[in-house]
Amino acid sequence: MIRDYVKEIVKIIRSTKDADKLKDLLSDYHEKDIAEAITQLSGQERAKLYNILDIQTVAEIFSYIDDVQKYLEELTIDKAAKVVSYMDADDAVDVLDDLSENKKNEIVNNLDEVTGKDVRKLLSYEEDEIGSWMTNNYVSITDDLTIRGAMSELVRQAGKHDNISTIYVVDKDGKFAGTIELKDLIIARENDNLSDIISSSYPYVFEKEKVSDCIEKITEYEEDSIPVLTMEGRIAGIVTSTDIVEMVDDAMGDDYAKLAGLTSEDDLKEKTFVSIKKRLPWLIILLFLGMAVSSVVGMFESVVAILPVVICFQSLVLDMAGNVGTQSLAVTIRVLMDENIDAKKKMALLFKEMKIGLLNGASLGLMTFVILGFYIHFFKKYVWMSAFLISGCVGISLVVAMVISSLVGTIIPMFFHKVHIDPAVASGPLITTINDLVAVVTYYGLARLLLINIFHI
Amino acid sequence: MIRDYVKEIVKIIRSTKDADKLKDLLSDYHEKDIAEAITQLSGQERAKLYNILDIQTVAEIFSYIDDVQKYLEELTIDKAAKVVSYMDADDAVDVLDDLSENKKNEIVNNLDEVTGKDVRKLLSYEEDEIGSWMTNNYVSITDDLTIRGAMSELVRQAGKHDNISTIYVVDKDGKFAGTIELKDLIIARENDNLSDIISSSYPYVFEKEKVSDCIEKITEYEEDSIPVLTMEGRIAGIVTSTDIVEMVDDAMGDDYAKLAGLTSEDDLKEKTFVSIKKRLPWLIILLFLGMAVSSVVGMFESVVAILPVVICFQSLVLDMAGNVGTQSLAVTIRVLMDENIDAKKKMALLFKEMKIGLLNGASLGLMTFVILGFYIHFFKKYVWMSAFLISGCVGISLVVAMVISSLVGTIIPMFFHKVHIDPAVASGPLITTINDLVAVVTYYGLARLLLINIFHI
Repeated sequence: MIRDYVKEIVKIIRSTKDADKLKDLLSDYHEKDIAEAITQLSGQERAKLYNILDIQTVAEIFSYIDDVQKYLEELTIDKAAKVVSYMDADDAVDVLDDLSENKKNEIVNNLDEVTGKDVRKLLSYEEDEIGSWMTNNYVSITDDLTIRGAMSELVRQAGKHDNISTIYVVDKDGKFAGTIELKDLIIARENDNLSDIISSSYPYVFEKEKVSDCIEKITEYEEDSIPVLTMEGRIAGIVTSTDIVEMVDDAMGDDYAKLAGLTSEDDLKEKTFVSIKKRLPWLIILLFLGMAVSSVVGMFESVVAILPVVICFQSLVLDMAGNVGTQSLAVTIRVLMDENIDAKKKMALLFKEMKIGLLNGASLGLMTFVILGFYIHFFKKYVWMSAFLISGCVGISLVVAMVISSLVGTIIPMFFHKVHIDPAVASGPLITTINDLVAVVTYYGLARLLLINIFHI
Repeated sequence: MIRDYVKEIVKIIRSTKDADKLKDLLSDYHEKDIAEAITQLSGQERAKLYNILDIQTVAEIFSYIDDVQKYLEELTIDKAAKVVSYMDADDAVDVLDDLSENKKNEIVNNLDEVTGKDVRKLLSYEEDEIGSWMTNNYVSITDDLTIRGAMSELVRQAGKHDNISTIYVVDKDGKFAGTIELKDLIIARENDNLSDIISSSYPYVFEKEKVSDCIEKITEYEEDSIPVLTMEGRIAGIVTSTDIVEMVDDAMGDDYAKLAGLTSEDDLKEKTFVSIKKRLPWLIILLFLGMAVSSVVGMFESVVAILPVVICFQSLVLDMAGNVGTQSLAVTIRVLMDENIDAKKKMALLFKEMKIGLLNGASLGLMTFVILGFYIHFFKKYVWMSAFLISGCVGISLVVAMVISSLVGTIIPMFFHKVHIDPAVASGPLITTINDLVAVVTYYGLARLLLINIFHI
C-alpha cells in the first residue's frame, strides 16, 4: 500500500533505455524524491541522466539536495552555472554557500545576467537580515489593469513564476500597493473593479529588518507569502511560507543551541575547529565563574574539616538548584519571545515561577529530609538525632536554593531582555554561577550555624 | 512611512458611524490586524462591531485571537456556534480547546452539521497524530474531467475553499490519485489532457502517523500543502504550510523544553499546578540520581578529612563536565533529528565530539593548572610544589572528565534513539549523573593517589 517513490525512481532510471520515455516517467515524480534517488545512483548513471533531463528540471532537483557540491562538480562549469541560473535566487545562494570559495566565484562569474544580479543582491545582505531569505519568484501586476487584463498578465507570468496564490500589485511609481488573492481573481466577474479585490493593507517587512525581530510577526499573519520592501516602498522580493518554515526552524535551533551553551547551531558537516570556536568561549567564561564559586567554597573549609560528611551532599544541593534554574530560564526565554508581554504579565510569570520553586522545593526538601536521615543513620553511623539534623540541613538548603534559583532564572533573562542583550546567550552562565553561590552559602552556612555552632555534632 | 495598521483600524472603528462604510473600510485590512485592534476596544465598541460584520468575517478575525474565550463569551451561544462553524475545522478545534469543558460542549452541540462532524473528527485524533492538524479547506476534483471542466469546478469550489494553489485529484473510487498545480492548470491549453498535468506521485501522509515521525519528511518537500490519507487511500484532509510552520515551532519548542528538563512546553496561561506536574517528575528522578552521586562522594570522605582544600574544586570539575556533556547532548539530538544519518556518520560524530572534548579539555586543563597553582600558593598558603600538585590534579581531572562527558553526551542519546525512546527526554538526567560520577571518581581518586598516597601533602 505505501509506495516507496525513491525506490521506484531508481528502478525506472536503471531500466528505461528510451530517453523520451524516461523523461516522461520521471515528470510524474516529486523533485525531492528524484533528488534522493540521484544520490543512490552511480556517477555514470547520473551523467546519463543529466544529459536526458532539461536544465530547468536538473535545477529543481538540485535545489533539494543537501550536500550539493559533489553533484555540481560532476557537471562542467558552464552547465553548473546554467543549472544554478535556473534556480530561485535564494536556493541558488544556498547551493553556492555549500561550495568552496573558488568554485563559488567561478560559477557566479558564469551565471546569466539576471540571476547573477539577483544572487549578488542576495549575497549582499547580512545573514540575519530578512532580505537574505527572499526570492524573486512572484507575480506582480500594476493597479490600473482590468480583471481580464490581470488574469492574462497572470497567465503570462505563471510560466516563469510558481508562487501565484498571492499576486502583488504595484502603483504607477512602482511602489507596493497591495495584494490580490488568486482565489478572488478567479471568482471575480469580468465587470468588477480590480481595486475591489486588492487588499491595500497587506503586511510587509523591510529588506534590512533582522529576522529575529520580524519572525514572530510574519508567522502570525499565516500567509503564503509576505513582501519584502526597500526603504522606498518598492518590492525587493518575497518570503514564502516554506522559507518561513526554515526561518522558524533556524531561529528555534539557535535558541536551543544557546540554552546548551553553544553560540549557534552546530552540525555534522562543520569542521572540528569551527565547532571548538563555538564552544570554547562559553567554557572559558564558565571556568572563571566556576573558580569564583571554588573560592567561596574555600571559605567553608573549616566546616568540612570538622564534619566531613557534609561534603557528600554538596553536589546534590548544587545540582538541584542548577536544574530548577535551567527550567525557569527555558520557560522565561520562550515567554519573552512573545513580544506582547507587558510588565503585569512579567510580574505574573515571576510570581508563578517562585510559587513553583517553593512547592517543588518543599516536596523535594521533605523527601530529602526523610530519605537522607535514614541513610546517614544506617550507612554513616550517626545517631538518629544527628542524622536528621544533617538531613534537615540538606532539606532546608534545597528549599531555599530552589526558590532563589527560580527567581534568578526568571529575573536574569528579563533583565538582559530589557537592556536588549540576547537573554538566551547571556543568561546561562550567570544564572549557574549565582545559583551555585547561593546554594553553597546556604548549605555550608546553615551547616556551620546549625550543626557545629548550635548542636555541636 | 511605516503604517501602524492596528492603530488605523481602531481609529476607523471609533470614528465611522455608517455601518456599510465601516464594513467597506475594514475589508481592506488583514484579519490578524483587526483581531489585534479588537482586543483594544471596549466591550460596547466590540458589541457594535459584531453586529455590523458578517459572521464569516468575525470567524476569520477570531481565528487570529490568542485568548479567544473572553471574546466568544461576549456573543450569544447561538452566534458563537455560528462563528465557530465558519472557521476551518482545525482553527475551530484550537478555539474550542481554549474554552472551559462546559462552554466547549455547549458550542459543539450548537455547531452546524458539517462543521460539527468535522470538529468531532478532528477531536478524535490524539494530539500527536498528524490528523489533528488537518483542515478540510481544499479543492478536490475527479480525474475524468477536461481542462475546462476542471477550471470551472475550481471556480465553483474557490468560493468556499481558499487553499487553491494545489488541487487534489481523486479517482472514480474516491481514492487520492494525485495533484495539479494551479499554475499548470492556468497555463494549460484547452485541448491538453488533464492527466498530463496531474502529478500522480505526490507526497502524502496517513492520518494516524505521529507528527514527530513525519514532520521532517513534510518539511523537506517544501510544498504549500500535503494530503492526509485514510488507510483506504481516501483524502481525510490536508495540512497546509502555515500548519507546518506551527508544527515545526511546536516540535522544536518541545525539544527545547526537554533539554531543560520539562516534559513539554510550558506557558504563561498554564495553571501553576500543571506546570508543577510537568517539572516535578524530572526533579524527583534527578534527586534520586543525585543521592547516588552523594553516596559515591561519601566514599572519599577520608580524602577530604586529610586534605580539606580539595573540596574547593569539586564543583568546578563537576560543573565543567556537566557543561560539556550538555553541549554534546544538544548537538547529538539535533543531528539525530535528521533521519538520514547512518552508522558511518554516527561514528564520525562520536569521533568529532571526542576530539572537541579533548582539545577543549586540554586548553581548559592547562589554564586551570596555571591559575589555580598561583591561587593555592598565595591564598591557601601551600608551598609551590604542593600548590601545583593540587592544581595539576584539578587540571588532569578536567581533561579526563571533559573527554568522557563528550563521549557520554553523544553515546547515550544515540542509544535511546536506537531503542526508540525519545533521546531528548531520557538523556539529560542519565548523562548528568554519569558525568558527575566520572568526575567525582576521577577527581577524588586522583587526589587520593597522587596527593596523599604518593606525595603525602
